[in-house]
Amino acid sequence: MNQLPLRENLRGLQPYGAPQLDVPIQLNVNENTHPMPAEVARAITDEVFAAAQGLNRYPDREFVELRQRLAGFLGHGVTEDQVWAANGSNEILQQILQAFGGPGRSLLSFPPTYSMYPLLASGTDTAYIAGERGAGFELTAESAARQVREKAPSVVFLCSPNNPTGTALGLDVVEAVYAAGEASRTVVVVDEAYAEFRHEGTPSALELLPGRPRLIVSRTMSKAFALAGARLGYLAAAQEVTAALRLVRLPYHLSAVTQATAIAALKHVGALLANVEDIKRQRDRIVSELTRLGLQPASSDSNFVFFGGLDDAPALWRRLVDRGVLVRDVGIPGHLRVTAGTEAETTAFLTELEALLAA
Amino acid sequence: MNQLPLRENLRGLQPYGAPQLDVPIQLNVNENTHPMPAEVARAITDEVFAAAQGLNRYPDREFVELRQRLAGFLGHGVTEDQVWAANGSNEILQQILQAFGGPGRSLLSFPPTYSMYPLLASGTDTAYIAGERGAGFELTAESAARQVREKAPSVVFLCSPNNPTGTALGLDVVEAVYAAGEASRTVVVVDEAYAEFRHEGTPSALELLPGRPRLIVSRTMSKAFALAGARLGYLAAAQEVTAALRLVRLPYHLSAVTQATAIAALKHVGALLANVEDIKRQRDRIVSELTRLGLQPASSDSNFVFFGGLDDAPALWRRLVDRGVLVRDVGIPGHLRVTAGTEAETTAFLTELEALLAA
Repeated sequence: MNQLPLRENLRGLQPYGAPQLDVPIQLNVNENTHPMPAEVARAITDEVFAAAQGLNRYPDREFVELRQRLAGFLGHGVTEDQVWAANGSNEILQQILQAFGGPGRSLLSFPPTYSMYPLLASGTDTAYIAGERGAGFELTAESAARQVREKAPSVVFLCSPNNPTGTALGLDVVEAVYAAGEASRTVVVVDEAYAEFRHEGTPSALELLPGRPRLIVSRTMSKAFALAGARLGYLAAAQEVTAALRLVRLPYHLSAVTQATAIAALKHVGALLANVEDIKRQRDRIVSELTRLGLQPASSDSNFVFFGGLDDAPALWRRLVDRGVLVRDVGIPGHLRVTAGTEAETTAFLTELEALLAA
Repeated sequence: MNQLPLRENLRGLQPYGAPQLDVPIQLNVNENTHPMPAEVARAITDEVFAAAQGLNRYPDREFVELRQRLAGFLGHGVTEDQVWAANGSNEILQQILQAFGGPGRSLLSFPPTYSMYPLLASGTDTAYIAGERGAGFELTAESAARQVREKAPSVVFLCSPNNPTGTALGLDVVEAVYAAGEASRTVVVVDEAYAEFRHEGTPSALELLPGRPRLIVSRTMSKAFALAGARLGYLAAAQEVTAALRLVRLPYHLSAVTQATAIAALKHVGALLANVEDIKRQRDRIVSELTRLGLQPASSDSNFVFFGGLDDAPALWRRLVDRGVLVRDVGIPGHLRVTAGTEAETTAFLTELEALLAA
């Protein structure tokens, strides 16, 4: 590749992405492993068939029906003018950085967190600032606000529930970060990719949107909606934010088949979200079983569990793969992350893990 | 929007996009206006139905089958490792600039040409250099090569057939530009979005790929394949180029439904491309009729015709809209651009135009 004038900050890098290994139990990328309900697969197919008749034409550049349905799903008084969507929440976050980040600007987030954040910063030539968490990976309102005041970033990404730790932030943290960013006019993004899995009583940052024009709440249909393959991320924010994103989006960025697929899914929210409660049960079961096994699982508001207390996490990861169970080594010593699968998948993971720990 | 810290180079801009007006004859965005063949709509639906069963999982990040089929369609000895795809050729071009452009780097193209090029440069903080054409918008090998030597751009976009003028470049121009960019290691992109409509005997830059690692040929399924709504752009280049693009693509950027749609279309190339010959006939008919009407149409290798000789192009554009015919005012005084539609649409355009010119 040295013949090519590759950008300096890309040289020597490897493409991002978890290993896609062909093993029976895949619990490594926080997918919803419950099968697609037959009625939803049929509804998607019917909606795509209707869209297929007009595929020779460009799609609705403003994806009006999709924005209406997403606003309806979100509630909290969110209107269609406050909603934006893109090909996965990665593209949502990239567009936010194209509008509010870039050369001479900065992005702050708090590792360990979603590992795409620094890559999205690099891809938009935004300086990346790694903030700090407490010893147990916690992030308090006081600490987060102090770091925002000190660093005065252009954009801050708060992942809540956080990936890979799984824990949701209190709204006090979001409020404090927003207030601390007043002077620097920091855009505050709460990445709620896993919001639908949070514990009863844990509020969404959607509640904080009124009166906060620099606040953005990002969501995805990949997880609770079981649509990772459809690539549909979206956000709610002030109308001024969606107007800004229209300046950086590629025209017709959302295909007619993507719009049709997401619309069909939103017509069947009940069937799609029916598995969320089961996934939460499996998640809580993993936490209690890992505790019983003497490991240290983090409290989780998501569809996965981050756990510590391992002597050699990479070796255990490898042994689990050998036994047909793929989990995620996120590169934090002594820790692994596992997605809560179906009851059978969860049982398989726990059984193999217990056997390996006993060996 | 002034409350928000919008990037400096975006302030005061309007979102890109042609007016989407609801008039009967839409010949403004170079779509394939022939209806989708029923057998292809059915095939797409069947392929999406199969994909829908697994939508809870992330799609094949490497879209292997799609790359194989695209390579097979392109021929010229192109292999799957030389093929890359994205959500429309706009995203293809954006990824190229993310890899080879960016801050401190530059993009050269030759206006009038595809109006997204400067916007893609701005969106990736690449400096945009507007090159020069001759008095009749022609671009010779000598002139293009001289400008590349003088400006030493990081990337050059050659649109062939060119939008909005419709004319294809000779391969001598591509060869000369490539050779002139040797010292500056300029990446040369030939945007062949309209390649399938070129006149018999006009070669594709695909012929020049062997031995030219800095050459990229970009294509789209939006035009000849009648799939503007599906958003599928692709390219062929040296394997080193596709390896570089893997460093900037967002993971899983091509959804499973997009892959399924494009694969189904590629299984039915014959049915989809059957209308290309008719579109070329309508295009040639527009050229000869406009000549008869005393206007100056450019020679076209695409599915549209660019024509001059108008006293007041914006006024004529408006009067055509009033009569139910939407064409494109590309902002060049005295000129308009019209897409070659079906025979009936083309007749309607020519009839209304002749009546307006006579009035």
